[in-house]
Amino acid sequence: MNMGYNTNPTTMSGRIASDVELDSRMEANELPYVHKVGKPPKQDLLKEIKTALKETFLSDDPLKPFKDQPKKKKFVLGLQTLFPILSWGRDYSLSKFKGDFIAGCTIASLCIPQDIGYAKLANLDPQHGLYSSFVPPLVYAFMGSSRDIAIGPVAVVSLLLGTMLRDEVDPVKHKYEYLRLAYTATFFAGVTQAALGFFRLGFLIDFLSHAAIVGFMGGAAVTIALQQLKGLFGIKNFTRKTDVVSVMRSVVNSAHHGWNWQTLLIGVSFLIFLIVAKFIGKKNKRLFWVPAIAPLISVIVSTFFVFLTHAERHGVQIVRHIEKGINPSSAHEIYFQGPYLAKGFKIGVVAGLIALTEAVAIGRTFAGMKDYQLDGNKEMVALGSMNIIGSLTSCYVATGSFSRSAVNYMAGCQTAVSNIVMSMIVLLTLFLITPLFKYTPNAILASIIISAVLGLIDYDAVVLLWKIDKFDFVACMGAFFGVVFCSVEIGLLIAVGISFAKILLQVTRPRTALLGKIPRTTVYRNVEQYPGATRVPGVLIIRVDSAIYFSNSNYIKERILRWLTDEEETFKDHPRVEYLIVDMSPVTDIDTSGIHALEELHTSLKKREVQLILTNPGQIVLDKLHASKFADHIGEDKIFLTVNDAVLTFAPKMEQA
Amino acid sequence: MNMGYNTNPTTMSGRIASDVELDSRMEANELPYVHKVGKPPKQDLLKEIKTALKETFLSDDPLKPFKDQPKKKKFVLGLQTLFPILSWGRDYSLSKFKGDFIAGCTIASLCIPQDIGYAKLANLDPQHGLYSSFVPPLVYAFMGSSRDIAIGPVAVVSLLLGTMLRDEVDPVKHKYEYLRLAYTATFFAGVTQAALGFFRLGFLIDFLSHAAIVGFMGGAAVTIALQQLKGLFGIKNFTRKTDVVSVMRSVVNSAHHGWNWQTLLIGVSFLIFLIVAKFIGKKNKRLFWVPAIAPLISVIVSTFFVFLTHAERHGVQIVRHIEKGINPSSAHEIYFQGPYLAKGFKIGVVAGLIALTEAVAIGRTFAGMKDYQLDGNKEMVALGSMNIIGSLTSCYVATGSFSRSAVNYMAGCQTAVSNIVMSMIVLLTLFLITPLFKYTPNAILASIIISAVLGLIDYDAVVLLWKIDKFDFVACMGAFFGVVFCSVEIGLLIAVGISFAKILLQVTRPRTALLGKIPRTTVYRNVEQYPGATRVPGVLIIRVDSAIYFSNSNYIKERILRWLTDEEETFKDHPRVEYLIVDMSPVTDIDTSGIHALEELHTSLKKREVQLILTNPGQIVLDKLHASKFADHIGEDKIFLTVNDAVLTFAPKMEQA
Repeated sequence: MNMGYNTNPTTMSGRIASDVELDSRMEANELPYVHKVGKPPKQDLLKEIKTALKETFLSDDPLKPFKDQPKKKKFVLGLQTLFPILSWGRDYSLSKFKGDFIAGCTIASLCIPQDIGYAKLANLDPQHGLYSSFVPPLVYAFMGSSRDIAIGPVAVVSLLLGTMLRDEVDPVKHKYEYLRLAYTATFFAGVTQAALGFFRLGFLIDFLSHAAIVGFMGGAAVTIALQQLKGLFGIKNFTRKTDVVSVMRSVVNSAHHGWNWQTLLIGVSFLIFLIVAKFIGKKNKRLFWVPAIAPLISVIVSTFFVFLTHAERHGVQIVRHIEKGINPSSAHEIYFQGPYLAKGFKIGVVAGLIALTEAVAIGRTFAGMKDYQLDGNKEMVALGSMNIIGSLTSCYVATGSFSRSAVNYMAGCQTAVSNIVMSMIVLLTLFLITPLFKYTPNAILASIIISAVLGLIDYDAVVLLWKIDKFDFVACMGAFFGVVFCSVEIGLLIAVGISFAKILLQVTRPRTALLGKIPRTTVYRNVEQYPGATRVPGVLIIRVDSAIYFSNSNYIKERILRWLTDEEETFKDHPRVEYLIVDMSPVTDIDTSGIHALEELHTSLKKREVQLILTNPGQIVLDKLHASKFADHIGEDKIFLTVNDAVLTFAPKMEQA
Repeated sequence: MNMGYNTNPTTMSGRIASDVELDSRMEANELPYVHKVGKPPKQDLLKEIKTALKETFLSDDPLKPFKDQPKKKKFVLGLQTLFPILSWGRDYSLSKFKGDFIAGCTIASLCIPQDIGYAKLANLDPQHGLYSSFVPPLVYAFMGSSRDIAIGPVAVVSLLLGTMLRDEVDPVKHKYEYLRLAYTATFFAGVTQAALGFFRLGFLIDFLSHAAIVGFMGGAAVTIALQQLKGLFGIKNFTRKTDVVSVMRSVVNSAHHGWNWQTLLIGVSFLIFLIVAKFIGKKNKRLFWVPAIAPLISVIVSTFFVFLTHAERHGVQIVRHIEKGINPSSAHEIYFQGPYLAKGFKIGVVAGLIALTEAVAIGRTFAGMKDYQLDGNKEMVALGSMNIIGSLTSCYVATGSFSRSAVNYMAGCQTAVSNIVMSMIVLLTLFLITPLFKYTPNAILASIIISAVLGLIDYDAVVLLWKIDKFDFVACMGAFFGVVFCSVEIGLLIAVGISFAKILLQVTRPRTALLGKIPRTTVYRNVEQYPGATRVPGVLIIRVDSAIYFSNSNYIKERILRWLTDEEETFKDHPRVEYLIVDMSPVTDIDTSGIHALEELHTSLKKREVQLILTNPGQIVLDKLHASKFADHIGEDKIFLTVNDAVLTFAPKMEQA
């Protein structure tokens, strides 16, 4: 590729005569030289397709390091690509381990109580939460490339999985089928994630906009918090629906007989403790460990308290039983046939995508903060593999947790070894101390979950959305209210729908702008943005602010004609518009419908005796104007490099008229 | 609004000192003056929303004539809007009627045999085709605003309706239910069309791209022609599937016993006659009436021939029975409840949209040729009303026919009165001569349909698609092969899917370009397009060719960083890149994700000690850069009006370095 450093003067001939002729008419600071646009260098079709495919699927050039390497080196590099631990592990040092050890212990103390609570959200036994904090983090440590992410079960995915699975199987009546379906969903969540990464389709998750995610997460947080009212109030007959109306009705209806004041007392007092701890951590960043260990302290204190007072005999619900020992195999329990296969697949795809979105967002955030590169597609393969292996070892869908990753980062983690440390502590917990959780009151778990999910509600982001982009704000609110008032799935659908609608609206109704000349320069800009810009009499300059595609070609044509009509009606005393200049600088592409629209515009303008002039079409657009013969049709001398060139060429003629 | 005619010098202050300072360094033809970008005038939120809504739904300003009119006048205008015949009818003259009469007779002679054949395509009795050429054109003549469209049943919609209805009800075993479902579908097709127009959602049909329509129409034409092999070969056991493989298998399997040579002889000889007539009409435009009356002549001659020779006794299938008399009412036969309601609704929506697409395309084409304005949404209300009334009077979905509209135009039609003339001739036919069609051989109808649909295959358009836009070509071929090898619905789905994928791909993987200075000018353009453009040492100038949205923000950020890395690797001996200029001229909008991406880009560049400079952000983008404080963050002096200004400001510093 010619990178353009050498000054090649081939395209600078012609137009000299008219330049001289025009010269005298120009203001002193205007340039009489008009550069020819001409035909751009021909693009090779195959090369073009190759470039398009490369930009779409391999935009980060993942094969670059493999180029021109001997076979053996390629194999080693391949292994290192699949298991990044092989490359960063060689530089691992004791000082790094110190950071990782502290961080690992901190996130372990945070995750153990959360895991038990999140498993309940997914309608699973508490040990499954712990299982999912043992195997998946281990696998991720070997395959993942983020240094800060903390792997394990998370609230939103647990809720999503719980509600979607319960729609298919009753978790109480058909406990075993429910569990098998959960494994199946986890398996396919992993397959989906790994497949997206392997086929380099990672960009698909970008279609869920940031705004929609903020709304969805906030809505899910509210929903999860509401669900915890069951545990917090000790209510026995609680609705199965997740919308705010049903839940509040459940809470109010059970007011006279269903509330248990002992439960409420324990729950609320520890909730206050947790929130105060959180507040302290927020005020003083160095005390980040206070909110990190507060949940474990709550669990220990409350468990001890219940054990001493035998509060469980007064209606305080407790965990009661939690399986001891390491993850059992669950390979034979996944449905690979029968009607549950399709259901598991569907749920797995949805849960997998949501889990992926969360993990990738976390990975990118922290990679940006520490300034290291993260290959999104490779991350997906790692996350997918981790969930596939998880589904074979009694885990449910694990992903990166926002809150725990932040703690991990603040506690000074250096590499994914912090996940290994956490995983080992969870292993010890499973072996040694699970029986101690017997007397842990459910109300504590509810308080811990509530205080955890409150962090998912991002007020500041919502305020920023409102300030910057109203449409984003609507998307955010749509997703939020969809989740809160209908269900998690509806909220998700709304989020995706609004995200797509935004893209489609932009390409259907693009903006057009009237241009004027900025005084003392040769540039033409939107007169609305630069009120100082002056118009050229007899010339109407319109800029089209979008690629011209089938979805907007007709609109653009009609909009340009409307500019012309408005102009003629508003300024009847001014000289008649003789030239319509369409500035195509922002027109990045045009398709056959767009060419048709231009042809129709040309015909309409001819009938009105207005000349059509195009300025600054890009390479692709110019190629297509030539391929369709439209350039010949309007005349190649009607295509200019800049608006100024076009005005310089035609304005003098105006003066004579 | 300030239209910018008055030269307002308020924004021209500042920077004078630095201008002078820079002056000496400039080449003679460069401008030392750097215009400030500043904050754009604040937009009112309500006004902004109002403008967005207006451009989306009322872009053609339909209420303009009603403004500032007395009430009575408003009522008259309203009536005239709903029934355009009230306005153009007042200028109607005998000379116009002459043109309309001839055109009406010509299209009537063309439509009568076609109607009978198309009704068979929809698995309906032949008279329903004629019914649909009587009532709908009458209604359209009063409500429609196209002067050239010829209304009636068309091949593609008949096929679509026939296959979709047959999937629900068997047209032979449950003939009455089938007919009722057809009326139901027609009713909802009309409701869909009218509703789209009424709610001004007409732009939705623009989402089916021209390329996809060409492919879909071509595929439908091939499918319809293949279906006619049944009639042409006189085959009795014919497949119900529409794909080419099943049809050809049917034809080949029936070769030894199923073909009827008398039928084949009649069919093929008249097909040759029709194709020759078509060829003559194409060669000499003044003989357009030859192909127009050829079908009727074929019908008359072949009917007379069969009547004389009693060929029907030798296995030549004939029409046999065709109901005499005017359309009976069918209001009580539409399903307004029961399971068929939903099915009829679904089929109606699809058929209505396809019919609409065809009619609007025809209307626009001829309006463009005669240069009159057509309100797409009003047209939809007219077409919808016509189908609703049609469904109450035993008609099935009618729309504008491409071939008959062309004949109408060439025969010199002046207004929609030609549709009234045609309608009256069909009325006479229904009253008087339907019994004469008894001996018309089916093979003739097959020949007529084949010769009619051949015109739907638009080779030239396909060649043009290939030349102009490869992606459009793929969409076209996808739709074509989808229809031919699978089914009409699959083809339609592929067409819509590819159309959307194109839009999404564009906003996911936008182009970025490296800019260089065009010699002897102050403009910067893509160095690939203008190989003569020269680069500025130490400055990397990248143009982003798309709005920056959530779907591409991450890609754009990474792509810009990749440009920088490539640059640094390729030109190691050149001065280090100190300034990265991002030209935002084509960036028409940015959302919160886009702002985040810019912030991340800024952070990354800071770490690499490269300064980020933005040039020419549009009004909306600039507003959001200010709202998000990003403008303050990078410094307002880092935002320039043009790339040249930015280079002029920073390049001298480079020289000192």
